[in-house]
Amino acid sequence: MKPFLRVLSGERVDPTPVWLMRQAGRYLPEYRAVRADAGSFLDLCYDPARATEVTLQPIRRFGFDAAILFSDILVTPHALGQQLWFEEGEGPRLAPPLKDASLDALTPAPERLAPIYETVRRIKAALPPETAFIGFAGSPWTIATYMVEGRGSRDQASARLMAYAEPDRFADLIDRIVAITVDYLGQQVQAGVEVVQLFDSWAGTLSPAQFRQWVIAPTTRIVEALRARHPGLPIIGFPKGAGAKLIAYAAETGVSAVGLDETVDPVWANMALPRGLPVQGNLDPLALKAGGAALDAAVDAIRAALADRPHVFNLGHGILPDVPVAHVERLMARLRA
Amino acid sequence: MKPFLRVLSGERVDPTPVWLMRQAGRYLPEYRAVRADAGSFLDLCYDPARATEVTLQPIRRFGFDAAILFSDILVTPHALGQQLWFEEGEGPRLAPPLKDASLDALTPAPERLAPIYETVRRIKAALPPETAFIGFAGSPWTIATYMVEGRGSRDQASARLMAYAEPDRFADLIDRIVAITVDYLGQQVQAGVEVVQLFDSWAGTLSPAQFRQWVIAPTTRIVEALRARHPGLPIIGFPKGAGAKLIAYAAETGVSAVGLDETVDPVWANMALPRGLPVQGNLDPLALKAGGAALDAAVDAIRAALADRPHVFNLGHGILPDVPVAHVERLMARLRA
Repeated sequence: MKPFLRVLSGERVDPTPVWLMRQAGRYLPEYRAVRADAGSFLDLCYDPARATEVTLQPIRRFGFDAAILFSDILVTPHALGQQLWFEEGEGPRLAPPLKDASLDALTPAPERLAPIYETVRRIKAALPPETAFIGFAGSPWTIATYMVEGRGSRDQASARLMAYAEPDRFADLIDRIVAITVDYLGQQVQAGVEVVQLFDSWAGTLSPAQFRQWVIAPTTRIVEALRARHPGLPIIGFPKGAGAKLIAYAAETGVSAVGLDETVDPVWANMALPRGLPVQGNLDPLALKAGGAALDAAVDAIRAALADRPHVFNLGHGILPDVPVAHVERLMARLRA
Repeated sequence: MKPFLRVLSGERVDPTPVWLMRQAGRYLPEYRAVRADAGSFLDLCYDPARATEVTLQPIRRFGFDAAILFSDILVTPHALGQQLWFEEGEGPRLAPPLKDASLDALTPAPERLAPIYETVRRIKAALPPETAFIGFAGSPWTIATYMVEGRGSRDQASARLMAYAEPDRFADLIDRIVAITVDYLGQQVQAGVEVVQLFDSWAGTLSPAQFRQWVIAPTTRIVEALRARHPGLPIIGFPKGAGAKLIAYAAETGVSAVGLDETVDPVWANMALPRGLPVQGNLDPLALKAGGAALDAAVDAIRAALADRPHVFNLGHGILPDVPVAHVERLMARLRA
């Protein structure tokens, strides 16, 4: 079995398997070259040839243990019928924002996702045999924050307020996102991914009651539905910013592994999370940017803290666009020494 | 002893004492009236008559158990010699940003803080006898983030990167902030405050190693220095976003009580924090904004979770400017029923 998959099945593997969130990205000159020819960012996501190429670039360069489909979490709202585009240098825009519009105004368009399944098939055919293949989607809470606000927001206040003030309407939205997510991830698996990761990038701003209701419960439903269709599917849950609420998340959702963001103390995680549960993470992206002795110390501390647990090395969130390639080389040399 | 101070000394008090972070603020029409006449926000902070008035307004209206000095955490960088102003509708600006300038370029100006001590004396003379009086300062890490960036920032990347890449320079900055903070809080106590709170608003983005070095260690030094001058002084530490790192913070800093932000599960906090340690918090400001049944449920859940521990009721962070006064009235009625 591939080293990455062995870890997810509960085994310690040495050297620690590694991949980096956003490893196909702007820090790579070969990515920037493809991006320059690709039209918009969203065009690139829906272009099987180019999306395959940028997915493979970091595998060729660094030999990471897993490739992750090049795409964006916001394709699910697009498939639910919102308009989606990316303002250069600013970020995503979704229209109409659901704080101003009814859900029923949206006409679902799941065919928008078809090129992504073609990308998955192409990547699958091209990957080296030892490289695992990860698909992904945004988690319902995080997707809902963008759908409600129509863009990213500092503290996800519109969605959190809607969840307090209009819980039935918010639950309807979450239900629709759960359904499209199960379908989308199931089709990724059918097309060739071996693992899926749920990104809950904005889980960190929720109160504990809302976290239970809008992170843990919908994640549990997605895990159950996917496992019913694909028994034994490894599923990584990444509730960024969950802090101590990782304990309940790990105990209740049924995910195979949890991602730790860079603010989580791996010593605490190792003590607090169920024995034997695989974890993924959690180098501070700024330590990778800083490089040198600070990077080495941060890497060593994480590996030491998780030395008796199945562990996939990763960042605590995506690699920054201005990280020198040489720092990634240094990281890989240290991990494989 | 005043109910609020009894809790901080380790006693359960019923009904739960309460105050709200940023209780002197824009949600109050009487605050907006003073603010309109006061010149800039910083002028108001340094105006003893008006700062006293706005500090007292919420006490008169709601009978909170504690008043907190009206001021801003950024007066300490001002006293360290940075220029400070507030861009209307945007936020604070400090010049020169230390990412571009040497610490030695700053000429300390501690006399800038003198009007604040006069404000403390006036508030002290005017407060009802049952109302406790809280002074405060920003914690070194949070202050450093503003001093380095020259303004607020989304993820405090400049300061975090300086801490990785130039640890000696960053330590020098933290040392200077520790010194001015000890002096500033000590003088607040001499002028009449009974309790101090350390606001570490940006503690949440730090890796565990940086949290230990730049939050726990400097806080410990401030606590020790203040207690040497003022034995028994109650000190509330509020490391916002610390998550599970609250355990180490509570165990190591020596603070009398910890503030919980709204993302912390109070059931977990009650289980994980030292038995008998007073906690403060942690209503979601958005639940207060939503009002109604969502507010009542959130209030009841917090009180139930902390029913066997000394507890000061508060928000998880500052009250939002657009919260209806009637929602605060509803909160107070429920807490005192």
